[in-house]
Amino acid sequence: MLITGLTPIKLLQMESIPLRKDIIDAHDRIREYTHLTPVMTCSSISELAGFEIFFKCENFQKVGAFKARGAMNAVLSLSDEQRKNGVATHSSGNHGQALARAAQLSGIPSYIVMPSNAPTIKKRGVKLYQGHIIECEPTLAARESTLSQVIQKTGATEIHPFNDYRVIAGQATAAKELFESLPDLNALIAPVGGGGLLSGTALAAKYFSSQTKVYAAEPEGADDAFRSVRSGAIETSQSNSVADGLLTSLGTKTFPIIRDEVTEVLTVSDREIILAMKLIWERMKIIVEPSCAVPLASALKYNEKLLKKRVGVILTGGNVDISRAAELFASVD
Amino acid sequence: MLITGLTPIKLLQMESIPLRKDIIDAHDRIREYTHLTPVMTCSSISELAGFEIFFKCENFQKVGAFKARGAMNAVLSLSDEQRKNGVATHSSGNHGQALARAAQLSGIPSYIVMPSNAPTIKKRGVKLYQGHIIECEPTLAARESTLSQVIQKTGATEIHPFNDYRVIAGQATAAKELFESLPDLNALIAPVGGGGLLSGTALAAKYFSSQTKVYAAEPEGADDAFRSVRSGAIETSQSNSVADGLLTSLGTKTFPIIRDEVTEVLTVSDREIILAMKLIWERMKIIVEPSCAVPLASALKYNEKLLKKRVGVILTGGNVDISRAAELFASVD
Repeated sequence: MLITGLTPIKLLQMESIPLRKDIIDAHDRIREYTHLTPVMTCSSISELAGFEIFFKCENFQKVGAFKARGAMNAVLSLSDEQRKNGVATHSSGNHGQALARAAQLSGIPSYIVMPSNAPTIKKRGVKLYQGHIIECEPTLAARESTLSQVIQKTGATEIHPFNDYRVIAGQATAAKELFESLPDLNALIAPVGGGGLLSGTALAAKYFSSQTKVYAAEPEGADDAFRSVRSGAIETSQSNSVADGLLTSLGTKTFPIIRDEVTEVLTVSDREIILAMKLIWERMKIIVEPSCAVPLASALKYNEKLLKKRVGVILTGGNVDISRAAELFASVD
Repeated sequence: MLITGLTPIKLLQMESIPLRKDIIDAHDRIREYTHLTPVMTCSSISELAGFEIFFKCENFQKVGAFKARGAMNAVLSLSDEQRKNGVATHSSGNHGQALARAAQLSGIPSYIVMPSNAPTIKKRGVKLYQGHIIECEPTLAARESTLSQVIQKTGATEIHPFNDYRVIAGQATAAKELFESLPDLNALIAPVGGGGLLSGTALAAKYFSSQTKVYAAEPEGADDAFRSVRSGAIETSQSNSVADGLLTSLGTKTFPIIRDEVTEVLTVSDREIILAMKLIWERMKIIVEPSCAVPLASALKYNEKLLKKRVGVILTGGNVDISRAAELFASVD
């Protein structure tokens, strides 16, 4: 077999849904740059639920979220040619910081397009890793056009926060790690926004723990994944929930995986989300943002589906202002 | 050798400072009833300090604090005769809850004297484990006289929160666990209130990790341990600090161990404590109470003593109201 020097093998490989080997490779690639995050249990929460819950604490991951995994895998998968001009994305959240970090660790530049109203703390996070911030108007159109200008000017490779198989394979490593420490989980619940973590989780279950049913957890006020699975096409999000990390619609790469591999999408109200968040803060003593509490809220609401099972829950991130959290808790008292 | 049936072997053994074997036995005794708590690192905090810090997360321990260890060891060390009448203590904090839990797990009654103004959440914690709550006036004199009445009436054995060698041996198991996972620590910092955790930690270092220097961390507003070590006698606490878990004076059993085995007592201001607490919340995403942040505050303040060392810090507890924490953080902005 001959392979010509011009065939972009890595790109070809990443044009299709990640295979078992792609996820194993991703894990080997990122292992030294990411935490093997702890799995925690809390007997009072398990008792409340009526089944054992195992929390995979990705909120303790580098940059405070699972996003470190996907961004790292994407950057480490670049060709030498691509590395020269660096990477770019638009992000108001953790992906921008995760990509800047991955780029810095790889010694390449990163360009992060951020809306002008992005929180100072997020901008500081990107700067910490020497990412170049390009500000734009806070609309999706402005973000996309600014990103396309940046790419045209710099030649950087776009790393989309979720609609990218390299990112999906990276996010899958969180569930893979969980299955390695708990080979007998019956169910695993992941939150769904754009679907990067969820599709990766579903693939990891398929390849590494086929008896584990994967459930998606979604806010009622942004239940586009629920509607997309029902209608068979990508529906747009109405974007109205306290879980502000989960307002995005699914992508063309994440939707088919979710449609085919996820058992069910469970939806919960904002009140249920805040109560679950409060439980995690008060009983587990760990800081999670509202989006991160959506899987526990779903586990508690739909607990009859899970009785007597061993259930995993992925905790995704803890980027929340303390005074904002105190206000939210007061609102459900 | 003959031992008469009347010799109270266990009590005799516990009338002297715990030996290496006592701590090993305590650990074997309590292992199945306590968490092997995780050790966490945070690169941004280590960078700030100028040395590597390893956090032993006892805030994730059962009942949310290391107190679960000492209480469990004390209850499991009782004679059959003592077990019959149960255990008693006075406590407004975590020790009451820890003792009620240990008693419930052992199938014996517990009597917890609590001041009438103790927070509802603490009372609920004791009731959860079927502890009998006896309320009294919120003064030390009332607590002590009420406890003595309860003991007279029930025949229960008093388990003091810190001035008890069985409790000290139990608290020592946190540091023992840390040394087992990190055999090359140069220093270990524990907070000091009554000195149960600190004296246990100092003994654990002496027996299991003799190259590790143990430092005490104490609020300036309650620096009685600092003054006691200097004067050579137990000094009383002036009890004025945001770190409300550390306002107690040392006991007759904890002081001599601390005097002989602790390298130095480091004191910090309330502002330094709150800033360290904020760092732990924001960077590590974990909930700690002010008392629990005192060791990190000390590590940062006296960092020239620790440069280039591998330093352990025991995080002790996370029982704090979220809105109170938000207020504290606002006060140092």
